[in-house]
Amino acid sequence: MSSIVVQHIDRADSAIIDGLAKCGVATVHEAQGRTGLLASYMRPIYTGARIAGSAVTISSPPGDNWMVHVAIEQLQPGDIMVLAPTSPCEDGYFGDLLANSAQARGCRGLIIDAGVRDVRDLTEMQFPVWSKAIYAQGTVKNTLGSVNVPVVCANGLVNPGDVIVADDDGVCVVPRAQAEAVLKAAEAREANEGDKRAKLASGVLGLDMYKMRERLAAEGLKYV
Amino acid sequence: MSSIVVQHIDRADSAIIDGLAKCGVATVHEAQGRTGLLASYMRPIYTGARIAGSAVTISSPPGDNWMVHVAIEQLQPGDIMVLAPTSPCEDGYFGDLLANSAQARGCRGLIIDAGVRDVRDLTEMQFPVWSKAIYAQGTVKNTLGSVNVPVVCANGLVNPGDVIVADDDGVCVVPRAQAEAVLKAAEAREANEGDKRAKLASGVLGLDMYKMRERLAAEGLKYV
Amino acid sequence: MSSIVVQHIDRADSAIIDGLAKCGVATVHEAQGRTGLLASYMRPIYTGARIAGSAVTISSPPGDNWMVHVAIEQLQPGDIMVLAPTSPCEDGYFGDLLANSAQARGCRGLIIDAGVRDVRDLTEMQFPVWSKAIYAQGTVKNTLGSVNVPVVCANGLVNPGDVIVADDDGVCVVPRAQAEAVLKAAEAREANEGDKRAKLASGVLGLDMYKMRERLAAEGLKYV
Amino acid sequence: MSSIVVQHIDRADSAIIDGLAKCGVATVHEAQGRTGLLASYMRPIYTGARIAGSAVTISSPPGDNWMVHVAIEQLQPGDIMVLAPTSPCEDGYFGDLLANSAQARGCRGLIIDAGVRDVRDLTEMQFPVWSKAIYAQGTVKNTLGSVNVPVVCANGLVNPGDVIVADDDGVCVVPRAQAEAVLKAAEAREANEGDKRAKLASGVLGLDMYKMRERLAAEGLKYV
Amino acid sequence: MSSIVVQHIDRADSAIIDGLAKCGVATVHEAQGRTGLLASYMRPIYTGARIAGSAVTISSPPGDNWMVHVAIEQLQPGDIMVLAPTSPCEDGYFGDLLANSAQARGCRGLIIDAGVRDVRDLTEMQFPVWSKAIYAQGTVKNTLGSVNVPVVCANGLVNPGDVIVADDDGVCVVPRAQAEAVLKAAEAREANEGDKRAKLASGVLGLDMYKMRERLAAEGLKYV
Amino acid sequence: MSSIVVQHIDRADSAIIDGLAKCGVATVHEAQGRTGLLASYMRPIYTGARIAGSAVTISSPPGDNWMVHVAIEQLQPGDIMVLAPTSPCEDGYFGDLLANSAQARGCRGLIIDAGVRDVRDLTEMQFPVWSKAIYAQGTVKNTLGSVNVPVVCANGLVNPGDVIVADDDGVCVVPRAQAEAVLKAAEAREANEGDKRAKLASGVLGLDMYKMRERLAAEGLKYV
Repeated sequence: MSSIVVQHIDRADSAIIDGLAKCGVATVHEAQGRTGLLASYMRPIYTGARIAGSAVTISSPPGDNWMVHVAIEQLQPGDIMVLAPTSPCEDGYFGDLLANSAQARGCRGLIIDAGVRDVRDLTEMQFPVWSKAIYAQGTVKNTLGSVNVPVVCANGLVNPGDVIVADDDGVCVVPRAQAEAVLKAAEAREANEGDKRAKLASGVLGLDMYKMRERLAAEGLKYV
Repeated sequence: MSSIVVQHIDRADSAIIDGLAKCGVATVHEAQGRTGLLASYMRPIYTGARIAGSAVTISSPPGDNWMVHVAIEQLQPGDIMVLAPTSPCEDGYFGDLLANSAQARGCRGLIIDAGVRDVRDLTEMQFPVWSKAIYAQGTVKNTLGSVNVPVVCANGLVNPGDVIVADDDGVCVVPRAQAEAVLKAAEAREANEGDKRAKLASGVLGLDMYKMRERLAAEGLKYV
Repeated sequence: MSSIVVQHIDRADSAIIDGLAKCGVATVHEAQGRTGLLASYMRPIYTGARIAGSAVTISSPPGDNWMVHVAIEQLQPGDIMVLAPTSPCEDGYFGDLLANSAQARGCRGLIIDAGVRDVRDLTEMQFPVWSKAIYAQGTVKNTLGSVNVPVVCANGLVNPGDVIVADDDGVCVVPRAQAEAVLKAAEAREANEGDKRAKLASGVLGLDMYKMRERLAAEGLKYV
Repeated sequence: MSSIVVQHIDRADSAIIDGLAKCGVATVHEAQGRTGLLASYMRPIYTGARIAGSAVTISSPPGDNWMVHVAIEQLQPGDIMVLAPTSPCEDGYFGDLLANSAQARGCRGLIIDAGVRDVRDLTEMQFPVWSKAIYAQGTVKNTLGSVNVPVVCANGLVNPGDVIVADDDGVCVVPRAQAEAVLKAAEAREANEGDKRAKLASGVLGLDMYKMRERLAAEGLKYV
Repeated sequence: MSSIVVQHIDRADSAIIDGLAKCGVATVHEAQGRTGLLASYMRPIYTGARIAGSAVTISSPPGDNWMVHVAIEQLQPGDIMVLAPTSPCEDGYFGDLLANSAQARGCRGLIIDAGVRDVRDLTEMQFPVWSKAIYAQGTVKNTLGSVNVPVVCANGLVNPGDVIVADDDGVCVVPRAQAEAVLKAAEAREANEGDKRAKLASGVLGLDMYKMRERLAAEGLKYV
Repeated sequence: MSSIVVQHIDRADSAIIDGLAKCGVATVHEAQGRTGLLASYMRPIYTGARIAGSAVTISSPPGDNWMVHVAIEQLQPGDIMVLAPTSPCEDGYFGDLLANSAQARGCRGLIIDAGVRDVRDLTEMQFPVWSKAIYAQGTVKNTLGSVNVPVVCANGLVNPGDVIVADDDGVCVVPRAQAEAVLKAAEAREANEGDKRAKLASGVLGLDMYKMRERLAAEGLKYV
């Protein structure tokens, strides 16, 4: 497989991206039909971050972070790097030096199906990372990979330019072409949830609010 | 297996429950003969919570949270929900809407051998959850389960009305009938520990305080 | 295998140890040729601690913490205990009583390829622990082990007196005899990194700073 | 918790037990409403065995197989030992010596939520074991446990005298009191399946045999 | 997300498919540039099978095998079913009844990122399955999914009609459009390997055959 | 860390090695005081092999099998290769070509804390491998490692020339200097076990044979 860097990728509109960030992972995931989540082992290195951005994807050999340097040149403000190793690996591909470089180009964070290090520095810099592992293991720069090709990351497909939404609940991928529609559905959902939340908080039961009692009885639920 | 909701369960006395909360998981577990712990993968979504309450149990199909709505109606102030899926699952059965509803009924928290989502909201609400995963994956409402039947949750048996104690060390189950005796043993243990703690902090060695030297020598330990 | 306690071990110079603490795990690991890391599942019970100290090693049977009491007597100020069970185990060998005792002797922390409990107390005391699990499960005091013998802990070899460096990135072992040389290499690395960090933060690309473009082209990377 | 050996337990009728063995795990599990399975990590040490028997349960400390000797005295022909450690452990509690002893008393096999060793010998003896691990790690005989008390084994509740069914698909527990009813349901299921199997093997589609087409359309499935 | 069944998919030429089967997973994977492998946890239920076929893909909810019935109607002789649940699941979606049905339509096997049951029967029928788990847990038929849409299965992307190659080494996906080129490369590789194998078996060292000595020395390898 | 190949290593006497093979892993492990086992995830690619040999150790970067070629030149008849990657990896470092080369030099097998491929060929050749994974993922030849240096493999320390014993129970490491003493202890154990086995098979209880009843009573075991 030849190693390539795709220099031009299409990105979603920044207003759409920022709207998706506001909705958060759980809502966006529901809004697009319960699809797009990466594996639950992808955890943030610190809590509280909620971001969205355009995916700049990196396909890298295990234990080799050469392509991260290549990818950083392709970053535009608002992008999020998504790194998938070509075989399972938890090495620390990324640390504070690379984070400084990425942040200088406006990068909003990193999604990596491998390891990350210097997490104290990254936390201080407020450069958020969702990773499979925290591990100081260093990497080499010997073998090529590719930038901005489709990758499978943590059991999810990511195309370059897809919108990545990430927060304490995990990471969700929104295909670029659907981003606008998903945002609308997510915002509708949010509007609707505010009302529900108030009712439930006031003591109304979901059983009544969602009119579940009849169907439960029909299915045969017995109260004893 | 028919799906049932047991509407009346016996609960331990609230003073006993609150006493157990104060002792915490490690002490309570020791006090009842080193039994009752759930698996160590059950982790809190935020640190610092220490609760106890009566178990309202939920047996649910994988990926189906219908029974949570049913269970919430059965909650009394001071209860803790305990959800065990009928096959392994990490879907996010529970989020901020359900937490509002549960909190409105006085529920103290959730123990779930599956996933949870909206953890930022749950943290802000101070609704504590101990779970196997944090995962935004949504669930359906199609298949019945049961409420307030015995369940095996995270490799531990939980009967409805058992006292659940949970803190940063994990989750411990105290059978309702033993709750009073366990509390006494736990408080005795605590009283005793205060004294030991002071001695150890002052530099007295456990070897001397517990008079271990002779037995170590008898077993053949050699200092070289 | 006879059970022994080695009472005299050589330790590295305290200035060297403190220097290594300042450099942190990722830098020290690189400085000694990318060796010495323990497995990535060794995680701190709270974030923010960065310590170094001389290893007092403990080889213990599974579920038996008798040797911890024996080890504490061998501690000198600045030491770090390193416990490896003789078969995989996640029981809570260590809690706040033992921490009080260890802290009274100047112990800086614990590295344990098993479980720990009372983590709320340990956090309040600021006694840092890196462990495989947080688990309240108690242990017995029935079977001997050894203190200050070589152990394999979390897939890394630790000799008594080796320098342990631990922070949010994990745990690294520096053989005592190499500690001085590793410190020098680590400090050189740090000095060098400050300069790089500034350049990268100002927008200079790693591709240019490290002069990678020619080699990438030679390897066949194609920009499309 | 005091350590006890319950010497008399009730067992199901041997014809019922043998009938359940013939049906196998998947059918029995379905016949009792999709309940009773132990965790999927419980794997047979060799393929092809299909057994059923009455559970003689063992609650043992981690890494301590003393209670196995105690349990063997309680075995009657047709029994199956079920061992659950009180905290997670993969040590080899059981090997060919104990298997000779158990087989001499008519024991049909072992279900162990821990490790087993001498698997080549056990295979030659055709003494089947379902375990969490194969591991040569030895155990001690220092701490008491109990025999014939309820245990939670591999996330399933087992009461002494329950019928254990085990084959290449895993392990299923049938509560003694329900064994007869479950057998009837299982045999009915089997009779019914023979007919279905023949139809499906002849090319009839499940879509038609189960009359699914209408409901699929009603749910909104689209053929494109 | 609407649920669809794509009824027409393009398949690779059967001679190409059979040629890829002969080469086996390791060779095919190398021949297409070390890409296309599914996760290593995908293991065969019995050893010795080596198959290739066209992927008929199934996206299914967790614990719901309704879509398998739908997919079987879409099978053509030589096809392989590839099932990916929409969230992690190890339930037994597939057993001997479905295998009879699939085999009646010429299906060569199943790749499933979940569980399978009746493995003794499947082995006797020689219907090979590569799965994440063997687990008797039953499923329901309540929620729609899709057939012949792109799926991510065991961390690999599979498009309907892609060629699946599976043997004791695991599972490899060959994009349909590249199948012919990959076969050529694989066969060339095989031809080449026969010669190498003979040389190595005769005692010629890889160091000499691949002329590695000079490069090793240049990199700094020292013989001591 | 410089990369070295140690060309001369001391080996144990071949009669001792062959004697240890006959005893098998479980017995040898007991005979040396329950030490030396590698992690239980190290499983044989086929059952029935029981080997012993002198360790030729390989420390390799993740995903890079260059050093295997270097190690093969160092093999003498009766040796076993032991490969430990410098960070966790499950790539297939080894397949049938390398096995032909190793077998040509009299190598008895491979212990690898990573992946292996071509397992069908290796099984036919009867070249046994104990590995962490079976995975077709290829490796590169870019970065040096070392041969015949001490390595930590699957949580066990292996020095070059140590005796490796491996069978269906796993892998055990016997330090070369202790090999003779361990063999004696193992053979004594075996002699002793034959007698015990016969007694137990005849129905004598371990409780009586080991005279456990008194100690059990003293510890407080109650028969009810």
